[in-house]
Amino acid sequence: MKEAVVIRDVSLRDGLQLVQTRVPTATKIEWLNGLMAAGLPKVEVTSFVPSSVIPQFSDAEQVASHALNVGGTSVSALVVNLKGARRAFDAGFRNVSYVVSASQAHSAANARRTTDEALNEFRLIVSERNARVDGWAIALECGIATSFGCSIQGGVDPARVLDIAEHLVAGGADSLLIADTVGYANPASVRRLFRGLFTIVGSIQVSAHFHNTRGLGLANVVAALDVGVRHFDASTAGLGGCPFAPGATGNINSEDCAFMLDAMGFDTGINMDMLLALRRKIELWLPDEKFHGALACAGLPKI
Amino acid sequence: MKEAVVIRDVSLRDGLQLVQTRVPTATKIEWLNGLMAAGLPKVEVTSFVPSSVIPQFSDAEQVASHALNVGGTSVSALVVNLKGARRAFDAGFRNVSYVVSASQAHSAANARRTTDEALNEFRLIVSERNARVDGWAIALECGIATSFGCSIQGGVDPARVLDIAEHLVAGGADSLLIADTVGYANPASVRRLFRGLFTIVGSIQVSAHFHNTRGLGLANVVAALDVGVRHFDASTAGLGGCPFAPGATGNINSEDCAFMLDAMGFDTGINMDMLLALRRKIELWLPDEKFHGALACAGLPKI
Repeated sequence: MKEAVVIRDVSLRDGLQLVQTRVPTATKIEWLNGLMAAGLPKVEVTSFVPSSVIPQFSDAEQVASHALNVGGTSVSALVVNLKGARRAFDAGFRNVSYVVSASQAHSAANARRTTDEALNEFRLIVSERNARVDGWAIALECGIATSFGCSIQGGVDPARVLDIAEHLVAGGADSLLIADTVGYANPASVRRLFRGLFTIVGSIQVSAHFHNTRGLGLANVVAALDVGVRHFDASTAGLGGCPFAPGATGNINSEDCAFMLDAMGFDTGINMDMLLALRRKIELWLPDEKFHGALACAGLPKI
Repeated sequence: MKEAVVIRDVSLRDGLQLVQTRVPTATKIEWLNGLMAAGLPKVEVTSFVPSSVIPQFSDAEQVASHALNVGGTSVSALVVNLKGARRAFDAGFRNVSYVVSASQAHSAANARRTTDEALNEFRLIVSERNARVDGWAIALECGIATSFGCSIQGGVDPARVLDIAEHLVAGGADSLLIADTVGYANPASVRRLFRGLFTIVGSIQVSAHFHNTRGLGLANVVAALDVGVRHFDASTAGLGGCPFAPGATGNINSEDCAFMLDAMGFDTGINMDMLLALRRKIELWLPDEKFHGALACAGLPKI
């Protein structure tokens, strides 16, 4: 009996965030169907962010109405503020994610607010969730961006991340997501931070969101696995990134990550051939993008 | 006091093996000087292979006469047979490497001999070394290629690798190099194989030579570190590969590997800025090559 490790594919959200090509809703739905068919257990399907900020996600409700009516895969949406949370709840999402930045400088540049203001906004979102008739059914995840460092301010104190995590759990977060937004984590700091987190957050789920900015993405996955992390974000074709790390590779690659986990003897539920076939479609849909990932280039090994 | 981890840079050997551009000897020497200046503790500088097979290395003796007369860095050469070993010994190398393939199919395709024939050749090399007046000063490393699998025959039985390792140590190898020639290793198989090796080879040095064919190179380094490996081959700019894995990324990248080890708190002795500067030079020397590595793209993190 293999142990399960869950990959949440974020290509439709984190991946499309920086893509200049506007992807038609129908294509996003084909993309989502491809992820579901390939067996991805979780997919982050869109972001409830003002269209003026990221026009790519102006079809969030349309994507939602498809995503929430097909079974098998757990779908979630990102929200950036209370207004977005209301939209996500109204659309019917039962898994909603929100993010605060551990780095003050990143918080100011990325979300134009302090970390404390972002934490306050989370409290409002929790209240809104709790006030809804079906609020009990909505799980709120809160991410902590730049948990290992930030390209604007440099280092981030792990104690600050633990402090934020404690606040979030006390404040109503159902799960946490620790994000290395711009590639500052390394296997040693990953082990230290997650060990520290597990001692303070109790039994709630803590997921990892790694970027491959400096090539350490999968090495960090191995380190996180070692200390008990079993939920990872990854992006098909390695799409994604951060506007504050231009030119760099972005999110860890779903194909490479799933391949590694499978090779290590974990059960991801993912059909590699189907995921690689979807990637080839995405390459056709986004001819101007730079794609990442070694498996798509080398192919699966001969067994 | 940081613990040391040794990177041997193999860009001048494994890296140049498949490069079509003939690199002038003077450029190779500038390359070597750059690696030494950047603090690489070990460099594999050339290969004693017939010029008819790989013309790139027809200047092996000229490279040697420079490499062996500058201090600070330990230099080694690869030999592919007894004749090459004689040339390397004559040239004055005190560190000489030889490789056998664990995979019969890879051995036949890559070296046109069986694994047992390759092991016999090693015995001849050991005898030649022992018969030399200064033989006591020559350290013989033997690599085991395709230790985790092979793109021609598929899986390789770990028991076969352990058996070969035992033969090599009994037969006079001073150190072993376990090579994942075409990217079949994963962190779980790396831990298993090295743990097994350490139980049978005693105190002799066992190094790891990983390729990044399927993106797992640095993840495998972390796994090897965990079970006690402290010597790694890597190639500046990620140059290298294998003729039997076309299109794939090759050796793990020296810059990314050194960055990771440094970030984890190990001492590599490598000056990252100088190594990245050398990489930029190499990109100018080899305008037709495909380069790999994330750090050169993203830059060093802000501290």
